[in-house]
Amino acid sequence: MDYYGNQIGKLIQELSRLPGIGTKTAQRLAFHIINMPMEQAERLSTSIIEAKKNVKYCSKCCTLTDSELCPICSSTKRNSDTIMVVEDSRDMAAYEKTKQYKGVYHILQGAISPMLGIGPSDLKIKELLSRLSSDNINEVILATNSTVEGEATAMYLSKLIKPLEIKVTRIANGVPIGGDLEYVDEITLSRALEGRIEL
Amino acid sequence: MDYYGNQIGKLIQELSRLPGIGTKTAQRLAFHIINMPMEQAERLSTSIIEAKKNVKYCSKCCTLTDSELCPICSSTKRNSDTIMVVEDSRDMAAYEKTKQYKGVYHILQGAISPMLGIGPSDLKIKELLSRLSSDNINEVILATNSTVEGEATAMYLSKLIKPLEIKVTRIANGVPIGGDLEYVDEITLSRALEGRIEL
Repeated sequence: MDYYGNQIGKLIQELSRLPGIGTKTAQRLAFHIINMPMEQAERLSTSIIEAKKNVKYCSKCCTLTDSELCPICSSTKRNSDTIMVVEDSRDMAAYEKTKQYKGVYHILQGAISPMLGIGPSDLKIKELLSRLSSDNINEVILATNSTVEGEATAMYLSKLIKPLEIKVTRIANGVPIGGDLEYVDEITLSRALEGRIEL
Repeated sequence: MDYYGNQIGKLIQELSRLPGIGTKTAQRLAFHIINMPMEQAERLSTSIIEAKKNVKYCSKCCTLTDSELCPICSSTKRNSDTIMVVEDSRDMAAYEKTKQYKGVYHILQGAISPMLGIGPSDLKIKELLSRLSSDNINEVILATNSTVEGEATAMYLSKLIKPLEIKVTRIANGVPIGGDLEYVDEITLSRALEGRIEL
């Protein structure tokens, strides 16, 4: 990267540390940043530091936010008796975009994965159990990913929560909307069959 | 983006202004940044501002760099009598990676494009001509892209430079290495035929 000079080289190097950003993309981004108006570059630079400094876990649902309680936990419009358990904040964002879910969330900050050395104690499970015992909860919806890790985490949680006599549900597996049966894998198809509903 | 809180929302917004970064990628990057060690986030933030503040055009070849002369123009190991003309600094970087070219560069900072309203006066052509008249130049290699704009720019430059009695060459078009003739377009194939060399 010598041919660019020091400052550009440094910027490219820092950008290429980001996930999914290779050297070529980092170069493209770096040149875009250099050609940006100064205020925009300043806003980008400041927002990185501000987000890093001020963001912490919501004291209730453990999502990343910048205040004591996240906007959803502090909202009075949400049914706080239903908790949807997701792996991370982006999964929460995905469900928020549906505008269908009116309950609150609990963010585990990961899933159980022996391969990566992530056990139950590395996740925000203790925090979930303390919410279940102190608040008045009707239903826990397990919405971890449909991966091996997500499924294992859901099984683990359901075994922990059922003895508390709280309703535990799991989001449905099945054919995605717009999906062509021909291209859907067998496990999804059998799950879709098992989970069929009466019309 | 309300569900993330203000600071994360701002960071996502600023990141998604970058080219090729949509909202989903910006989210992923934002959460990565939040989970980074503080020093790394600071390095990223500082490098943006430092690059933006200190980077300027090399006074000779017009590449973006942080000193008066870029590392290549100030190197004594390069043949300053051969100039390769490219559209932007990334093209220069691409040729530098080949480690085959020992001459110097001239960066036009774009290509002639009537569609985008970019004319010859918007490019660093005046600077190129002043180099050609003052320095002792043997050959100008036109290495603009093989696009309509790049070809037009190369034609335009060759007409300007030929009367100065300097050798003007254009990099070859042809089948890329590893390319299967079956999948190569017709124009490339005819150019490869025209440009055939005796073995």
